[in-house]
Amino acid sequence: MTDLPRYAYLGPSGTFTEAALLAMVDVGEVEPVPMIDVPAALAAVRSGDVDHAVVAIENTVEGGVTATLDTLAQGDPLVILGEVVLPVSFELVVRRGTVIEDITAVSAHSHGLNQCRRWLAATLPGAVQIAASSNAAAAQELAAGVGGFEAALAPPGLGERLGLEVLTAGVADNPHAATRFVKIGRPSQVPAPTGADKTTLAICLPDDRAGALLAMLEQFAARGVNLSRIESRPRSDRPGEYSFSVDALAHIDEPRMAEALVGLKRTNPVVVFLGSYPAASGYPTPVASGTSAEDFAEARAWVQGLRSGRH
Amino acid sequence: MTDLPRYAYLGPSGTFTEAALLAMVDVGEVEPVPMIDVPAALAAVRSGDVDHAVVAIENTVEGGVTATLDTLAQGDPLVILGEVVLPVSFELVVRRGTVIEDITAVSAHSHGLNQCRRWLAATLPGAVQIAASSNAAAAQELAAGVGGFEAALAPPGLGERLGLEVLTAGVADNPHAATRFVKIGRPSQVPAPTGADKTTLAICLPDDRAGALLAMLEQFAARGVNLSRIESRPRSDRPGEYSFSVDALAHIDEPRMAEALVGLKRTNPVVVFLGSYPAASGYPTPVASGTSAEDFAEARAWVQGLRSGRH
Amino acid sequence: MTDLPRYAYLGPSGTFTEAALLAMVDVGEVEPVPMIDVPAALAAVRSGDVDHAVVAIENTVEGGVTATLDTLAQGDPLVILGEVVLPVSFELVVRRGTVIEDITAVSAHSHGLNQCRRWLAATLPGAVQIAASSNAAAAQELAAGVGGFEAALAPPGLGERLGLEVLTAGVADNPHAATRFVKIGRPSQVPAPTGADKTTLAICLPDDRAGALLAMLEQFAARGVNLSRIESRPRSDRPGEYSFSVDALAHIDEPRMAEALVGLKRTNPVVVFLGSYPAASGYPTPVASGTSAEDFAEARAWVQGLRSGRH
Amino acid sequence: MTDLPRYAYLGPSGTFTEAALLAMVDVGEVEPVPMIDVPAALAAVRSGDVDHAVVAIENTVEGGVTATLDTLAQGDPLVILGEVVLPVSFELVVRRGTVIEDITAVSAHSHGLNQCRRWLAATLPGAVQIAASSNAAAAQELAAGVGGFEAALAPPGLGERLGLEVLTAGVADNPHAATRFVKIGRPSQVPAPTGADKTTLAICLPDDRAGALLAMLEQFAARGVNLSRIESRPRSDRPGEYSFSVDALAHIDEPRMAEALVGLKRTNPVVVFLGSYPAASGYPTPVASGTSAEDFAEARAWVQGLRSGRH
Repeated sequence: MTDLPRYAYLGPSGTFTEAALLAMVDVGEVEPVPMIDVPAALAAVRSGDVDHAVVAIENTVEGGVTATLDTLAQGDPLVILGEVVLPVSFELVVRRGTVIEDITAVSAHSHGLNQCRRWLAATLPGAVQIAASSNAAAAQELAAGVGGFEAALAPPGLGERLGLEVLTAGVADNPHAATRFVKIGRPSQVPAPTGADKTTLAICLPDDRAGALLAMLEQFAARGVNLSRIESRPRSDRPGEYSFSVDALAHIDEPRMAEALVGLKRTNPVVVFLGSYPAASGYPTPVASGTSAEDFAEARAWVQGLRSGRH
Repeated sequence: MTDLPRYAYLGPSGTFTEAALLAMVDVGEVEPVPMIDVPAALAAVRSGDVDHAVVAIENTVEGGVTATLDTLAQGDPLVILGEVVLPVSFELVVRRGTVIEDITAVSAHSHGLNQCRRWLAATLPGAVQIAASSNAAAAQELAAGVGGFEAALAPPGLGERLGLEVLTAGVADNPHAATRFVKIGRPSQVPAPTGADKTTLAICLPDDRAGALLAMLEQFAARGVNLSRIESRPRSDRPGEYSFSVDALAHIDEPRMAEALVGLKRTNPVVVFLGSYPAASGYPTPVASGTSAEDFAEARAWVQGLRSGRH
Repeated sequence: MTDLPRYAYLGPSGTFTEAALLAMVDVGEVEPVPMIDVPAALAAVRSGDVDHAVVAIENTVEGGVTATLDTLAQGDPLVILGEVVLPVSFELVVRRGTVIEDITAVSAHSHGLNQCRRWLAATLPGAVQIAASSNAAAAQELAAGVGGFEAALAPPGLGERLGLEVLTAGVADNPHAATRFVKIGRPSQVPAPTGADKTTLAICLPDDRAGALLAMLEQFAARGVNLSRIESRPRSDRPGEYSFSVDALAHIDEPRMAEALVGLKRTNPVVVFLGSYPAASGYPTPVASGTSAEDFAEARAWVQGLRSGRH
Repeated sequence: MTDLPRYAYLGPSGTFTEAALLAMVDVGEVEPVPMIDVPAALAAVRSGDVDHAVVAIENTVEGGVTATLDTLAQGDPLVILGEVVLPVSFELVVRRGTVIEDITAVSAHSHGLNQCRRWLAATLPGAVQIAASSNAAAAQELAAGVGGFEAALAPPGLGERLGLEVLTAGVADNPHAATRFVKIGRPSQVPAPTGADKTTLAICLPDDRAGALLAMLEQFAARGVNLSRIESRPRSDRPGEYSFSVDALAHIDEPRMAEALVGLKRTNPVVVFLGSYPAASGYPTPVASGTSAEDFAEARAWVQGLRSGRH
């Protein structure tokens, strides 16, 4: 065991999640800890067994938004500390010497098989599709000569590292598909604002009037905060009611976001804070007139002055 | 000169404004200072010549909302410290022995003549109407036997004090008419909240889009603050643009009002604070769920906790 | 009696209201009918005794917004058919040979005296102010040598027509003051849209929640309709409740205004339509993207197509 | 070939989608047409090869919301005609005589494997997971003795129909999981309103201001229409921009929904109508005061009367 920070991820080595992890940290400065699935990775952070986890949160490749968001929002508090977006693209890999006509079975994670469904139907129509516990596991079994399949769909680069041959690169039914991965941690520290940040929240509305969603969004709009994502989620605990998962384009250390949070907290029965962190895009978030930290500070000083008789 | 606080009002003694002043303070504890009109009364507060002024602000009897609000909003800051609402009702007073058939001329302030226009047309159709500098001045001249008129329309009680005879009481074209008077002071202290307070503001919008007025009102609604009065006012300095005069049902020391003010200040080019003071009605203002001082304090503590890693 | 359309106005000949009437119609094509006050003029339209009335509706010179708006909104329906805005400016007129030192009494309508209050205090401090039934009546009595005063404040031009001498022109305490006059008629026809129109409404809200005013304004904003005036008015029939008087910058024949009216009518207990008419400014009203008649027609045709299966 | 209406569904016989189809129509009154995936099923409706399709639209079992919604929204218009919600629950089926210790490989659709991931890890930790083209196909291959696996996860009832043995019923990681299926058709007819209806829309906002989402939702709120689902979707054609997929609780034949659609169409660059249809819940949708068909009819008649001079 080292003193390096421990990072849980969907293992084994070679998964898209590992690629996301490596896109976020420097190799050699962390101790990667492979886990069987997203709930296990998050549980390891909650228990203190690891320091962080990297998990997919949007657009299903190795575990989708639903499970991750629900697991994050329930139980001991966790927060998102950063995000990275990777394109969804596979390589069809084989052992050296195998040609496409030899392939009777192909393996990948069930999400990987699904992401390449049409390509497999067109290219390998007769091949059996074997779901592995991860895309990397499929490639590793193939390299080890076990598993009973002649090909695997592997994340870019993994086949080469394993000494496999790449028959086709850039395999994906949808060339625009991408997966968003997030780095998770305990809430003891929030990353500093960068000017290009997101805040992720889960919110339950007070009732289902036509106006309740509007009133919730007005808490953002009244402080000039834009949303980049909103999804209603049926509440499993209360059929017919909904919660909302949103990404807001501001950092909790910005007054506009802090004030929006105060307003949300006051007027909704449940608000779960899931972190403020740098947006993967890196594009600085526009700050509308009257919503900068300076605007808030000046307005507050003015109100404070009024209250003490200075105008 | 005494050490009592000096109160400017529309004089002379006996006016409706004096009645309003006496409804607000105890006789003997203030030094009333009669002034010729509202601008003069407000100028005396600004110069420090008096401590306070009492002026009519709504529903014209002795000077209307327009002049008072405009004069308040421009120049050195002044604030409203309290309000009182008096019904509009006159007494037709004469010197003892005069009967109604003797009346060839009747005097009152021009607003008083106007408030009783229909009654005068029906009751004294042939009488000349002489505009006095105040209703009280008309009655005093009548008592002194000067002024060339046999009758005056006087505030209730004044005729009796002057030794005049009341021919008809309760004179007013509109039995529901009332005038709202306010006590004005320099902004060195704001009255403490009572639970039944108003805050008066003058606001210029950033532009005249359909959405600008809505956005301004959302700053109140997002904090659960109701308005009891709103009036658009053409801006004399910018033709085609408008300012808004509003009374909000909350006190600047309440977080919901303070936060609404912060929001208004951030997003509008001009916001003039004209005071937080007890409402004349005395009805406690309802505090909607999620908008009490405790709700704000709890929500802020929660956000502060999030920022320092406590959830 | 002629066959010309009959127009009631605040008489006698020479008032500001007559000037407003003459600014709206061609002399010789109407029969002016002088009335004693605004309620009498409106009653004459309601009874059919006249075809139209011209009355002041904003900024008090000869009768103010309150009385006119309230009288319009109650009783048999009347509508505004047009408007004109005149500056508030008087001439101090005397009989030939009178000099300013001779003036011991001056007459005008009570509103006129009030509009020139500061000027009179400075220029004719010792003069008795006699309130006449109209500014024109004061000048006529002066010309006739009756009334017991040596001077009158008269609308521009009237003194000359009466053979009086103008001692001072441009008399007014506030050089920006102006009065808005409207032409009133029965609702049998609404003027055609011109592209620069106003619609005047009186609206009572369903309750006094913070959101009720906002919801009312959203009915305008959702159709891109701007307001040029909004005033809350205490309801004399229900203390503590308010109605709202608004001018909206669109014509009822425009779909955006018609749809806003449908929305207002559905969601508020009282909506009184007081006319759609050309704005005095003549500035074409901007039509925001998506709110033109064509936009509505296209969107409706689209929805109609959807309902019948065409997409 | 029969004259019965042809229904495409994700085949082969025995899938969850077939179960959804059978929950919507009477056996014997339709001709089921098995298809390889959702895009193929929708293409068959577009081409006229079939009359309808039944596809999963929410909560991934056999193809998820993303693909279905995107495929619906692009290309020739299609509409949703009805919906049904089925719980997610599998049976572990084997050939008679097989016991759990015999199982070295298990097959199901990749989504099915994923929905039972934790259960498989606990119950059959060593078994190879083989992804089939559908859950039903896995069971059929098992019954036919081909495919090289000893067990399958099958929709309830299918194993018994195929002569297989059910080792475990009620298999699912999340006992609350359910899938929503919809019946798709060409837009030539919209089902009649039932009082408990949904309308599904895809909407692109005009820009990404904080106010744009709010303005979009105000078009619903101004007509009293509630949403039961909202999801932002990244636009693959315009990175950084979003479209919104919403379910609104009203029918296009209701004026409140039709008017909301007119407003949405006017003010947003893209609005795709994806059908009005009975909600699976069957709960009548509350109609807020002022938003019923009668309220609209009365308000429109009132406006029409105003325009023709009747008040």
